[in-house]
Order: sequence, then structure tokens, then C-alpha cells
Amino acid sequence: MVTERTVEIVEVGPRDGLQNESRELSTADKVAYAERAFAAGTGRVEITSFVHPKAVPAMADAEQVAAGLAGGEGRIRSALVINQRGLERAVAAGVDDLNAVLVASETFSQRNQRMSVAETMVEIARMKAATDLPFSVTIACSFGCPFEGHVPEAGVLELATELAALGISEISFADTIGVGTPDRVTRLVAGLAERAPDVRRRAHFHNTRNTGYANAVAAVEAGIHALDAATGGIGGCPFAPGATGNIATEDLVYLLHGMGVATGLDLDAVVANAAWLQGKLGGDPIPGQLSRAGNWP
Amino acid sequence: MVTERTVEIVEVGPRDGLQNESRELSTADKVAYAERAFAAGTGRVEITSFVHPKAVPAMADAEQVAAGLAGGEGRIRSALVINQRGLERAVAAGVDDLNAVLVASETFSQRNQRMSVAETMVEIARMKAATDLPFSVTIACSFGCPFEGHVPEAGVLELATELAALGISEISFADTIGVGTPDRVTRLVAGLAERAPDVRRRAHFHNTRNTGYANAVAAVEAGIHALDAATGGIGGCPFAPGATGNIATEDLVYLLHGMGVATGLDLDAVVANAAWLQGKLGGDPIPGQLSRAGNWP
Repeated sequence: MVTERTVEIVEVGPRDGLQNESRELSTADKVAYAERAFAAGTGRVEITSFVHPKAVPAMADAEQVAAGLAGGEGRIRSALVINQRGLERAVAAGVDDLNAVLVASETFSQRNQRMSVAETMVEIARMKAATDLPFSVTIACSFGCPFEGHVPEAGVLELATELAALGISEISFADTIGVGTPDRVTRLVAGLAERAPDVRRRAHFHNTRNTGYANAVAAVEAGIHALDAATGGIGGCPFAPGATGNIATEDLVYLLHGMGVATGLDLDAVVANAAWLQGKLGGDPIPGQLSRAGNWP
Repeated sequence: MVTERTVEIVEVGPRDGLQNESRELSTADKVAYAERAFAAGTGRVEITSFVHPKAVPAMADAEQVAAGLAGGEGRIRSALVINQRGLERAVAAGVDDLNAVLVASETFSQRNQRMSVAETMVEIARMKAATDLPFSVTIACSFGCPFEGHVPEAGVLELATELAALGISEISFADTIGVGTPDRVTRLVAGLAERAPDVRRRAHFHNTRNTGYANAVAAVEAGIHALDAATGGIGGCPFAPGATGNIATEDLVYLLHGMGVATGLDLDAVVANAAWLQGKLGGDPIPGQLSRAGNWP
């Protein structure tokens, strides 16, 4: 049982949600999405990804999105970067926080990053040395790889230890393909706490197989500091509606508040944001349930 | 972390799932649904409800469903009954196991059962005395009532204690409207274990607000013996597709097996059953995710 705890929710919908939706939002709507998240009490929003526009066309307006969002107290504008070119663009665009990606499986690393795991580690070390911005790393495929299957837990923790040795101040375990279960979450989060107690612990869950919220609870019980979520649970694969999105911010907040875990978010505002986003994405049902079922009581 | 444990999954789709679907199955398909669940390794299926056909038209063929299902080793044909008339019908139909309902909130009790909570307790005592069949009681609205809001936990545990004193051998906490969160699950299940350690502990979750699977994990960790689930997660309200069904058998099995909790079910067979059921219900997406996302690895 968890009480009197606080967990930061990082809104990743403008990046991880939108890059996996079949429908694109206008730049103005992306900015509005992030502004609505800040207004609902979110302290950090992953506003975009500075990757090559040919790789992820939905993020081609990264500079414009960043330019549309003023900085300030309680408004951490985070961006995903996977190499030094992206980092330079992100820094030039004036973001506040960077999140790089290290893939825990070799095959997915080659396909996603066009680099080996070892090469990515070198690139991350270079990026970290090149900036003073807060710099977190997400370990993708921490729970499984679509090509290699199970990813050995010891290897994931070894990568986390190497990242900590580079001075990375926040490490996130991402269940990229939504296959994780709570016991593994517990072991990874507790394992990181044991190996690198000063590193902030973060996790990223997809609800592809309906394990995402149970995984989030396990992470909280194991001492997570931050959880990623996307308003509406968007990010589903276009040909399987509702099947593969991030965990929904509103449903996560409902769950955590119900358990006495504070998030700083205004649940009614997040639910309103989910309804707004559903309209912007064409009106089809979104995976988040709370905008349908209603807050309670 | 839970290891080396076994949890019984009671398939309640033919009863709680189908009674809340807009599309009705034929009697033959209801029988096929239960047969498929047994064939997948389910030991107990809630095959129907012996209630007045005017109250629940979808269960008007209760006798015919029961007649279509042979008994035998590893095939517990359970039925829901809410009064003595129903119990007489269920016994005459030859079912193996009975499940009665006590509602934890007065308003919902009057509307659902047309009896007060105290009157229902008397009726349950009479029913229990009138049969030698295994007799469980589900405490509906154990987590919240659509009319009264929060239902005090102490009251729910008091009702459970009264039921145990009547000799009820299995008590289930039902989150009828899908508002529960894991900490409350923990307290109810542990509270029952403390007050009546010899009573089998069972729980029933709806995924209305995406808390159902996290609640199931909390129940397992608190020492639950049996969890209800419906193949496909069916039972959603017709005007909010996918929003309010039972937790899906296939997704629950994936979650529990991933945690090293045995269920005796063949996951691939359950996934095939979910796909079959989706077809029988008209082909629209069902809430269970595994039949879309696939078993893994």
C-alpha cells in the first residue's frame, strides 16, 4: 500500500502519442496540446522529437512547436533526441530538458537508431558532455524486443549502470512493445535503486496487452520518481484502434490519486484535455477510459 | 513479487458478459462459449443466471443453457441466483455451484434486488440452508455505488463477516461499477483473510476506468483464491463500446502467467475463444487486447 507519496507524470503524448497516430495535428494544435497539459498541472511535457523529418514525418515541425511554447517556472519543455545533430537542434530551439534513447536489444537498436547498442552508448556520452541541460536516457525495449523476444534483465540493469557512470541523472525503463508484467517492473526499478541510488527512476509503459496500469502501480511501489503517460492513451497503431497506446494520463491520475499518490495534476482538466484531443484526432474512441466513464465519485 | 502461486479464474462471460451486451447469443452459442472455456482449461464457468426473464431477458434460456452442458470432473457449472425461486430453478437444472449476490449499498440493493441489504442477508441464509451445493456470495458494490458514491470499507467487511458466520464458503468482492483502486483491494482481501481465514477469497473487477488489472494484481498479492473474468472483456455498455466490461480472461492470464502465477488455462486457446466471441458479437473490437496484440513472445 502506497500513501503520502508523490510521482511526477511526464506528458509524452505530443511526442510518443502523436508520432504513432495516423492523423497529424497542426503545429498550432500540438502547441495547444502541450499548453493544455501544463495548464492541467503537468510540470514536464515531452513536446517533440528532434529527429530527421524523413524518419518521423510527424515531428518535422519540432522547431516550430518549441518556438510556440514559452518557458518558465513549472513548464519544463522536454525533447527527445537520438544523436548530436538532434541535440544541437534541440538546444538551439531552447528546450529545457533532453531525453535520449538507448535500445536494450541489438536488432531493434540497429533498426531504430541505425547504431549498435555500444555505438549509442558512445553517442550518449558525447551528447551528455556537450550540454548542461538536464539529460535523461530512456532504455527502450527494457521488457522485450519485437525481433529478439525476451531481453535479459541483467543486461538492462548493466546498461543502466553504465549510463549512471556517465553522469546521466534520470534513467527510464520503457516497455516499448507493451509486454512487461509487474514483477519485472519491480526488479528493474529496485535494481536501479540499488545500483545507482542517486539516479532519478522513470518508467514508460504501453497498455498493448492491458498490463500498463498494473506495471505503473508496481513501479510506484518499487520507488519510481516519474512515469510517462499520454493524454487519452493515444499512440495506438492505426490498424488496431485503441490497442497499443501509451498509458492514458487521465486513467493513471485516477489510479494514483485513488491510492493516495499525489501527482499535482487536476484530473478534471486532464479528462477535458482527453476529450479535446479525441476531437482533434477525428473523434474515434481513444484508449483512455475516464473521458467515457467519467471521474468518480 | 508473486511466485509459485495458483489462482483460479472463474469465467463469468456467459453470465455477466452476455447480460450486458447489446447483441444476444443463441442458446447454442452460449453453450459453445462455456464449452470453449472448459476446453481452454477453465475449471468453473458461471454459465447463466436464474433470474426472472423480465428482469434480464438475455438470461431467459437459463434452463436450456444448463441442459446443454454435461457435468463431470473439472467442469463446475456455476449459476447466479438472487432468491429462493432462482435457487430452486438452478438446482432443478442440475448446476454444480451457486453464487448469490448481496449488495453493499442500500440504494443499489433496492434497485437491483428489490430487497434491503438486511432482507437479502435473510434470503441468503435461507438459500444456504436449502441446498448442499457449494454456495458463494458476491458482495456487489464493494468499492462504490452509482447512487451512494463511496461505500465504507468497514461496512463491506462487516457484511463479509456476517456471511462467513452463515457458513458461506466463498466470498467475492465485486467492483460492480469499476471504480476501485489497488490499495482498497488489498485492504478488503486482507481484511477478509483476517476475519474469516477459512473462507475462500474471490474478487470481480470491471475495467471501466482502466484499474481492473492493477486491482487483480493487488488481489493476488493480498492472497486471493479466485478471480472472475470474461473472455474478450465483454460486458461493455452498448453506448460506450469497450468501456465497461469485465477484465478479459486472456489479458488476465497473460498478466498472471508473466508474473509466475499459474491458472491452469491455455492462453492460446483463450485468445482463440476471444476471437470467436468477437465474431459472434458482430465483429466490433472487444476490450480484451491480447486477441489484437498477440501472445508474446
